Parts: sequence; structure tokens; C-alpha cells
Amino acid sequence: MTFPRKDILGTQDMDASEISSILDVTESFVEVSTREVKKVPTLRGKTIINLFYEPSTRTRTSFEIAGKRLSADVINISTSGSSVAKGESLKDTAMTLAAMAADVIVVRHPSSGAPHFLAGHVPCAVINGGDGTHEHPTQALLDLFTIRQRKGSLTGLRVGIIGDIAHSRVARSNIFAMRTLGMDVRVCGPASLLPLEIESLGVRAYTDLDTAIRDVDIIMVLRLQLERQEKGLIPSLREYSQLYGLNLKRLEQAKPDVLIMHPGPINRGVEMAPEVAEGRYSLILDQVANGVALRMALLYLLAGGPGL
Amino acid sequence: MTFPRKDILGTQDMDASEISSILDVTESFVEVSTREVKKVPTLRGKTIINLFYEPSTRTRTSFEIAGKRLSADVINISTSGSSVAKGESLKDTAMTLAAMAADVIVVRHPSSGAPHFLAGHVPCAVINGGDGTHEHPTQALLDLFTIRQRKGSLTGLRVGIIGDIAHSRVARSNIFAMRTLGMDVRVCGPASLLPLEIESLGVRAYTDLDTAIRDVDIIMVLRLQLERQEKGLIPSLREYSQLYGLNLKRLEQAKPDVLIMHPGPINRGVEMAPEVAEGRYSLILDQVANGVALRMALLYLLAGGPGL
Amino acid sequence: MTFPRKDILGTQDMDASEISSILDVTESFVEVSTREVKKVPTLRGKTIINLFYEPSTRTRTSFEIAGKRLSADVINISTSGSSVAKGESLKDTAMTLAAMAADVIVVRHPSSGAPHFLAGHVPCAVINGGDGTHEHPTQALLDLFTIRQRKGSLTGLRVGIIGDIAHSRVARSNIFAMRTLGMDVRVCGPASLLPLEIESLGVRAYTDLDTAIRDVDIIMVLRLQLERQEKGLIPSLREYSQLYGLNLKRLEQAKPDVLIMHPGPINRGVEMAPEVAEGRYSLILDQVANGVALRMALLYLLAGGPGL
Repeated sequence: MTFPRKDILGTQDMDASEISSILDVTESFVEVSTREVKKVPTLRGKTIINLFYEPSTRTRTSFEIAGKRLSADVINISTSGSSVAKGESLKDTAMTLAAMAADVIVVRHPSSGAPHFLAGHVPCAVINGGDGTHEHPTQALLDLFTIRQRKGSLTGLRVGIIGDIAHSRVARSNIFAMRTLGMDVRVCGPASLLPLEIESLGVRAYTDLDTAIRDVDIIMVLRLQLERQEKGLIPSLREYSQLYGLNLKRLEQAKPDVLIMHPGPINRGVEMAPEVAEGRYSLILDQVANGVALRMALLYLLAGGPGL
Repeated sequence: MTFPRKDILGTQDMDASEISSILDVTESFVEVSTREVKKVPTLRGKTIINLFYEPSTRTRTSFEIAGKRLSADVINISTSGSSVAKGESLKDTAMTLAAMAADVIVVRHPSSGAPHFLAGHVPCAVINGGDGTHEHPTQALLDLFTIRQRKGSLTGLRVGIIGDIAHSRVARSNIFAMRTLGMDVRVCGPASLLPLEIESLGVRAYTDLDTAIRDVDIIMVLRLQLERQEKGLIPSLREYSQLYGLNLKRLEQAKPDVLIMHPGPINRGVEMAPEVAEGRYSLILDQVANGVALRMALLYLLAGGPGL
Repeated sequence: MTFPRKDILGTQDMDASEISSILDVTESFVEVSTREVKKVPTLRGKTIINLFYEPSTRTRTSFEIAGKRLSADVINISTSGSSVAKGESLKDTAMTLAAMAADVIVVRHPSSGAPHFLAGHVPCAVINGGDGTHEHPTQALLDLFTIRQRKGSLTGLRVGIIGDIAHSRVARSNIFAMRTLGMDVRVCGPASLLPLEIESLGVRAYTDLDTAIRDVDIIMVLRLQLERQEKGLIPSLREYSQLYGLNLKRLEQAKPDVLIMHPGPINRGVEMAPEVAEGRYSLILDQVANGVALRMALLYLLAGGPGL
């Protein structure tokens, strides 16, 4: 299989058939992590760099495990304890890593657009592991894979995304891809966290949670960045939790088989009650498991290993 | 060989035959690290996570080397630069790692009981890499292996453990296992660092070092946590060193073939003089070398690799 | 091939034939990183420790990639988050790592002489990854390899090293090796950054950049440690840049085919203009690429793998 792309920077410019084919390839990697020997030789001798300018456990670990299960060499670089601390430019860092014959650079960066900038300067593949408030495409793709795994198909499903829509790269990447796939997307949050122009993306905005979750097939709850409170965007955690926290009582308003998602890490008791996170229709751990498979698929597609 | 346990959380609930069989398996791994090619394929395709909530070089490195020599994929997570910093609950972190199909999670945590809590929530194996002031079972097992290697057997040997008994997870894990194996255990330290009820564990308590080390076969010196002084538990490092520091002069009171142990890292000149640490009967570097073998044995037993 | 050395601590005591033979071995490793499968089994089952007491991306990453492409197990230890933070002595740390059967310890340390001290205490190989203001031999060797690759031979070439000569371990290691190989070396910088006795090393000192770069074959620009300004050794970055920054205008004074080098990371616009760094005769990315090959060669020579 030849993949037409050098980089994975966002879902905004992906069409439906590309997304579908990524999810199809992911399918074949899900099984690898269930084997007794969770390892395939696909990317032996390839070099993958995790270049993280923001703290992360789950995304970095997920990429590291994905790379290692494909037999690649994986190198972690985080800002603390690196020459990044010496003020080197992003471009120089990237060109240096490319000169060491890296095959894939996974980059997480607080500045929106950093991975795109970097991709323009290096010959190797770049995967956006989350940039500022812009995109987090691997999260959206694993979310879609998880929904498809449960529901069979995606078109026509109705999703409610709840929380800090304005600052969420997870929300943006999901909105782009879901709209492309013909899903019906609602977003819901306090007015201070709902961008005015959000409906131009083809979604409907709500400030009332009970209304927003009525009749949706999936509720995707976003992590509340606790620093939002300090910036005065929400009055208090307590009020946020009362108005936008998903608990069992509120779920009674929703479809009986509604699926619950969260990109993690969860602020238990703030945006989601523990009983919901661990409840019957929670897909949260499926998202994590599928994250490894999705990242294996992308690394495989970009680093051009031999046939499966 | 089938091992009856999912986790290694402490030595307190291990019986003598279990300890012996762990030490027997360790025997077969000692040789691997002396080969030209220090690697066996035993755990190929297994995923081991080092989840460290406290700084550590030797324990983390020892587990990492052990895992890699068994051909496992090893992932390090430390609190700095991870979403642990974002305040995720220990339970969520563990469930996330388990969902990524980890086989073994090695956890070090400042809270006593954290590994037990975690083991109750994840299907994969958990190894306690040191929890609060509670247990550090892999240290105790490698200590016992090292003594057995030198002395042939353990039953009936007399050991003196010197230092901050009250706060030492190394001391606790050793006391449990040594008593189970029929060893005679003395503990010795300033009264402020000797718990009142310590003799209920079957040991005898001393505040005078010269008396405590008379006639013992092994002296195990604990690291003095330097922050104890700030908390007022010892009057000064200098006085501590004069009263409880092991030096050559003091060793003249002991058996001529007494063995000297220390879990490291040593505060040279505080609890132990350099001449003792590097002296003739010091087992300190044997402890380090055997630590790798013991951890290979435990990883092998828990991750269920094929026969050796 | 048997290599006569246990450690690589500096270039000062290397003779010309030893340097040449290291560069010859490097030659054979350059190709590995251009393969589809960038990996050889040479050091399978060997353990390499990166022990870094100073922050570093490029040197640590270069060694890590080099080790992994040779199939060795590579363990990273950096001062943050390790028992180094607990104040363990360098000697004890090193002996501990050696007891775990490490084959090579790569050490970077702020104290000049630390790797030499360490090498005297451990049976395994030690590579100096940069010590204080003393030596950085792998950087010098990769620089020489890069020049030789472009120019065919080294003897008789004229080099100008520009910048903070007084504090640069890169400059010192290069000066030693270049003089040994019969190269003509000029150093140039502000008087406050030029040690008085530098000419005793067989180089000629300049304070005027235009004079220094006239007729040289290679200009090697050093990174300006920005903290020098705080210490009052340079009046301002701006003035430094005006007097010693290499830009296109200034390059007109130099030979038309002069080669430009920099060990990185670059302070763009301070010691070097971006147009020079990315210009036609810049070898900066060659240096990075060759750094991996040179370190593979040294790891191979020291860890005694089987024939290539």
C-alpha cells in the first residue's frame, strides 16, 4: 500500500476516503496488541523521534509503545533536560533530527502550527501530536475508530462534544473529521468557552447540557484545563461541574445506549463523575487501547514499511 | 514453571518456599549478565512500564536493564514531564497503561500502599518498586539472594540492620523475609528512629551500635535520609555519624568475616566510611549485580514467558 | 580489529595514526544510516549508558541512535529525576552502573576531568561526552571526519575557530587533534574570551575576525554561551554579533570555497547569520549526520563487537 502523504498534521484537509482507509489499516493492527508476543518486524531499523515540548504521559507512551511493537527504534526528547532548554530554534532542532536520519518525528508543541512549520523544513515524516489549540489528529482518528468499532459505521451518527470548545485541539480535529464523514455534531459549553464563529464549522452550539445531550449517540466530554479558572473564563470549578459535569442523573436525559468518551486524563468529579467514566457505555479504555493501534497504523503508513 | 502470583507487592505475605523458589530462579539469570551477548529472547513482545513517582537511578535502571536483557519493550514514565503532573489519579494512570496492553507495571510511589491499590485495579502484573515507608520487596529479595550466594544458606544467620529503622521500607521488607526464613534479626538506631513496636516483628532492638554488631554474620547499613535532620529526628549528621556510622575501628568489634551490605546510594562518611564500603567483606556491588538478576527472575515469573 | 584503548577521554593523547584509523572505521558506518533498514546486529546484548549531568539533545540523541542502530540496549540517565539528585558520588554511581554489567558509559559532566576520574574506577569503557571546559572528543572527531570527507585529506588545511575559545571544550579537542594532524589552526575571539597561553598549543590567536578568516579553508564557529554576557565577559550580544558574527558580507573576505562548521545548537543571528548556516558551503548538517556514524564507530571499537 502506498500512502499519498508525507505527514499527518491535521484532519482538516483529509477527505472521507482517506480517513476510512486509515481506520481500515488500524483494524489490522488492533490484533497485534492482543497476541502473546506483541511485536511485528514491520519497522525494524526505522527511527522514530518523540519530540515533546509539552508534558504528556498518554500520547508519548502510546506512540512509544506503537513504535516499539513495530520494532522501530524510538527516541524520546522532552523539553526538560534537552538543548531545547538552550533556546535552539524549532527549525534547527528538527533539521538536526532529520540529519540523524530520523524517519518520523512526532511533535507536540504549545504553538499552533509548529508541526506544519517543521514539516516544511524536514524531508522525514512529521506527525502532529497536538499543537496549541489547533489540532490533535491522532486523537480524533482514534476516537472515530473507536466509535466505528462499536457502531459499525459513522455517517449519520449524532455526537455531542462537551466542555472547553474554544481551546480544545481534540474538539477541532474531531469536528473537522466528523463533519467530513457526515456526522451530526453538537458542541456545548459555557459561552466563555464557545467561540462565536464555531457554527461556521457546520456544528450546532448549545450552552445547556441537558438539551445538548438529548438524542445524541455519543457524548464526548473534554478535559477542563484547570488553569481556565485562573484566567477567569469559568466562575468556579464547582459551578462548572454543576452545569457541565456529566453524572448519572444527567445521563437519564440521554439515549439509553449513548456512548461516553473522554480523551483523558480525566478530572474526576469535575467534568465527569467516576460512575460515568467507569460505567457501562464508557469507551474510555477502548480509546486508549485503540490509540496504540491507530498510531501503529500511521507510523506504518508514513515510514513505509514492507507489506503487512 | 507456573508462578501463583499476579503481583509482587511485598515480602510480608511470602512464605519460605516461595522466597526460596524466587531465589532459585534468580540463580539461573545471574549468568546471563556475564555472557558476551547479555540477552535472552524470553520476554520478546512483552511491555514493561517503569512508573516512578519518586526519583531513582538504581532501581529504575536495574529494572530497565533487566527488562531489556529479557528482550522486553521497556517504557519509562517519571512524574516530571508527564500527565501525572496534570493531576491524573493513580488509578486512571494505571488503567490507561493496562489498556495499552502493558504486561508488568513497576511502580515506585511516596504513598505506602499505592502499589497494592493499583494492583487491585489492573489486570496486568504490578511490582512494588518501593512504596513510602512500607515495603521494597525486590531490594529485600536481592539482599537475601546475595547473602545466600555467599553463605550457602540463610536459616540461622544473624543480621544487624543499622540506621533509620522507622522510615525504611528496605528494613521492613528484609525483616519480614528474614524472619520467615528463620534468620535472627537485630535492628539498631537512635531511639527517635526506632519504632516502639518494632520488636513485635520478631526482632531485637538496640540503640548501642557496638553491642548490636557483636556476633552478627551480616551488617546491613541503611541510607540516612538527610532530610531526617531537618525534621529534628537526629541532632546532627556529625553526631549520627559518630554514634552509628560504620567505620573500620568499629568493625573490630564484629566477627572477622562479617559481611557488609548497603542498599545504596551511600552517604559516604555519614552512615558508612569509604574504607568499609570498598572493604574486603563488602557485598555492596554484589547486591547491585544480583539486583538485575533478581528483577529478571521476577519479570520472567510474572510476565509468563516460555520456559528458559 | 582490536582497539588499544579502554576509554575515549580526549584527543590530547591521540596520535595521528589512531585518529586516522578511527575516521576509517567511521567511514564504514556512514552507509548504515542510509539503508532502508538502518540497523546492524554488531552490539546485540551490549549495554550502553548515557549518563548526562548536563542538558543535551544532540549529543545524547546521537549516542542513543548510534547505540540502537548497532542493536545495543541503551539506557538514559539524566540528573533530573535520578538518585544523582540524592547526592550520590560520581564514583558510586559509576561503580553501580559497572556492576550492572554496563559495557560503555557515555558521560557528560560540568566538571573538567570527571570522565577521567570515572574511567579510573570502572572496568567498562568510558566515553567523554563533554566535560566542563576541557574536552569533547567525539565532537572533534566528527568534525575532522566531516572535513576529510569533503577535502580528501586533512594535513596542511588551514582552519579558523571563532568565538569563546577560553571556555570551549569543542575548541580544545579540535585544536589538539588538528595540530596532531598537521593542520594550521587560528583562533579568534574577543580578548576576554581568548586565553593568554593559547598560542602555546601551536595555534595563532586573532582578535580581528576579517584577518582571521582570510585564506582559511574552514571556518568553525563556536556557540556563544549566552550566560557569558551576564558574567561581563562580553559587553553585549549586539556588539559581539557585530564584531564576531559570521554573515554573508563578511564571508566575502574569505576564500570562495571556504567550508562553514558549527557544533550546534546555533544562536541564529548572534554568532552566525541564518544565510550562512544554510548556505552553500555549510557542513553543519553533515556534522550531525556524521556524528551518528562516528559514535557508532567508537561504540563498536570499545564494546568489542565481532568483525563487521
